[in-house]
Amino acid sequence: MVHKYDLRVRYSDTDQMQRLHHAAYVEYLEVVRIEFLRSLGFSYDGLEQSGFLLPVTKLQIKYHQGVRYDEVLTFETRVVLDSEVRLTFQSQISASSARIALAEVELACIDRERHRPCKMPSALLEVLRSASI
Amino acid sequence: MVHKYDLRVRYSDTDQMQRLHHAAYVEYLEVVRIEFLRSLGFSYDGLEQSGFLLPVTKLQIKYHQGVRYDEVLTFETRVVLDSEVRLTFQSQISASSARIALAEVELACIDRERHRPCKMPSALLEVLRSASI
Amino acid sequence: MVHKYDLRVRYSDTDQMQRLHHAAYVEYLEVVRIEFLRSLGFSYDGLEQSGFLLPVTKLQIKYHQGVRYDEVLTFETRVVLDSEVRLTFQSQISASSARIALAEVELACIDRERHRPCKMPSALLEVLRSASI
Amino acid sequence: MVHKYDLRVRYSDTDQMQRLHHAAYVEYLEVVRIEFLRSLGFSYDGLEQSGFLLPVTKLQIKYHQGVRYDEVLTFETRVVLDSEVRLTFQSQISASSARIALAEVELACIDRERHRPCKMPSALLEVLRSASI
Repeated sequence: MVHKYDLRVRYSDTDQMQRLHHAAYVEYLEVVRIEFLRSLGFSYDGLEQSGFLLPVTKLQIKYHQGVRYDEVLTFETRVVLDSEVRLTFQSQISASSARIALAEVELACIDRERHRPCKMPSALLEVLRSASI
Repeated sequence: MVHKYDLRVRYSDTDQMQRLHHAAYVEYLEVVRIEFLRSLGFSYDGLEQSGFLLPVTKLQIKYHQGVRYDEVLTFETRVVLDSEVRLTFQSQISASSARIALAEVELACIDRERHRPCKMPSALLEVLRSASI
Repeated sequence: MVHKYDLRVRYSDTDQMQRLHHAAYVEYLEVVRIEFLRSLGFSYDGLEQSGFLLPVTKLQIKYHQGVRYDEVLTFETRVVLDSEVRLTFQSQISASSARIALAEVELACIDRERHRPCKMPSALLEVLRSASI
Repeated sequence: MVHKYDLRVRYSDTDQMQRLHHAAYVEYLEVVRIEFLRSLGFSYDGLEQSGFLLPVTKLQIKYHQGVRYDEVLTFETRVVLDSEVRLTFQSQISASSARIALAEVELACIDRERHRPCKMPSALLEVLRSASI
């Protein structure tokens, strides 16, 4: 399953190169992951409230082309369940059908109290299993 | 007492106007407040760990002139103890002796658990009283 | 005329107080101003391309209450045309009908080449006059 | 040659996990690259003014452990000259001698006018050759 989501480049995220700053992609990717989960009926906020966190453990982005203020970025994202602890989101980012960037973000489930790796709750695992087909 | 602190404009904080983005000043002012307290021997981190928070309740900035990437901003800051709950930091921001901005930031002490206003701990009050002369 | 716009609190904009950081409001207000202009058929991007900039000259925010990750902020905004050079946006920010913050942002028109104050282009003035009723 | 640089975790860069947000590392790495070049007597600002840009083309970060507000991060960075167009910075990030993260950032030289890849100016190549030993 591919999740599709659009985000517009914010003025405050541009830099003096007059392009979207490369760090801002990382924040946009986070919004996209959370909306992906929401589209599956899963609340990341609820996950944290029930005692789990999903910090990023690995991040890789290839930037093909810059993008300007006010352009609309389209994120096409797949999720891969690496184990019962780890998952990876892969996104193709485009704008007006030009290829902008490729990103891969790995996250691991930890418990909120001790910050130790732990198995994801079964509700999340189920949702991810259905989405990773 | 006037606290003086320098911060260099970061590339990621510029925008496509090729100036420091107006929201970045707000983050720089926070760094300056914390370093002001540190220079007085007071740790904001320690304050939070002992159960108190100092959220911003009011913010006012007048921008006189833009500032470019890599310029060094000088913050000259005074603190005013408004009450045993509230305090205000006033900063003059300059670069190469040109006047860049004036800022006033009011904070209130709240307790971390209930997020209700409360009297600042006496160690902080003492430090602020000596600094606000 | 009151412009209404919703923005969801992003995870990357929270801080360790577990609330939206006070500087992030400034970025959200910028998004809201640009969408206000867009709703009037005016493109801020087009304005810059035609040689004008609208930097912020004054900023004032009163924070009444913190707001958490994933909450939806509602911005109700009016615009006032102060002169042919300056304009002010006033926003009431609420979440689930609780009052969160009040903001006032003044901007001035400058020309892109010399960064000197100048009269706003008539297309913008017209749009603002109709909106400021 | 290994360049060593310290940066303190800013409050505004923490998130509600009460750790430095993963996107903020990307901004800190940029500060470190620029200070690396400055320590070699080279001004990135001057490079842009002479008509060249160094956008990021690839980014990889492995996060080993979270880091808290006010902690001091130590960046130990090497630079590799991949070609006359591309260069890569590799950083080990630690805090109080604990391993925090590993990062690799590739940049490419482009000309400011046409945004096309081009050979780095010889002054930069020279500096990088001496630093990459």
